[in-house]
Amino acid sequence: MEVFTDEYFMAKAIELAMQAYEEEEIPIGALVVYENRIIGKGYNQTEKLQDVTAHAEMLAITAASNSVNGKYLSDCTMYITIEPCVMCAGAIQWSRLGKIVWGASEPKFGFSRLDAQLLGKTALVSGVMAEQCSDLMKRFFASRRK
Amino acid sequence: MEVFTDEYFMAKAIELAMQAYEEEEIPIGALVVYENRIIGKGYNQTEKLQDVTAHAEMLAITAASNSVNGKYLSDCTMYITIEPCVMCAGAIQWSRLGKIVWGASEPKFGFSRLDAQLLGKTALVSGVMAEQCSDLMKRFFASRRK
Repeated sequence: MEVFTDEYFMAKAIELAMQAYEEEEIPIGALVVYENRIIGKGYNQTEKLQDVTAHAEMLAITAASNSVNGKYLSDCTMYITIEPCVMCAGAIQWSRLGKIVWGASEPKFGFSRLDAQLLGKTALVSGVMAEQCSDLMKRFFASRRK
Repeated sequence: MEVFTDEYFMAKAIELAMQAYEEEEIPIGALVVYENRIIGKGYNQTEKLQDVTAHAEMLAITAASNSVNGKYLSDCTMYITIEPCVMCAGAIQWSRLGKIVWGASEPKFGFSRLDAQLLGKTALVSGVMAEQCSDLMKRFFASRRK
């Protein structure tokens, strides 16, 4: 039986998203895996840092690059609770990430609305634990509207 | 006579690009201006930091956001020596920068090859001191091929 499934790592990304939620950030989490080991984590911190570049994926890429002391992550997989935006997709492309797996799609801000070919060299998997990932987002925005 | 022209600030961005050049980085510089005052600077540091997210524009946005203690830069102008890539254009969009001015176009990695509409809400000016900006790039890549 495989332990290190996509669901295993996505559950860890959801934990990161929940940490963002608790800190009143839009709840998105991301992590980078190399040979079944998590080498970089991030959760959205745009409010705390007052910095639009502090998306979960950007922080996870920076952390993973620090871990391996190299800027290319070709043999790594990134797990993200929500489809990446254009900025993050651009960073994923530059980092040469071999594969990305996301939970819920993002029709408004997701990169694929603009150009799904942007990540033509990266293996893409979507819809892993999508409901949990999007529920957290819905709960967050519902609580903000109150 | 206007002192704070586009050329005035672009010359400052070129100085930043030259700093990158001296540190053996791809020579691109960027800065953010608010009411004729530079509130954030950056030059490409992807090699030094071994981090693909460390583009000049990203660092300048983070620095400017720190300066104003806010994540939105609507009333600001960014000067960049080279047309921004997709990642940086995404960050520019999130930061709501009112205007960007770049020097030389980047047919291969520039955002406008993908979708010029990405920055539909931002005023775009291109070609300011383009020759100086691109000469620095050409000189850098020529020296690397030796």
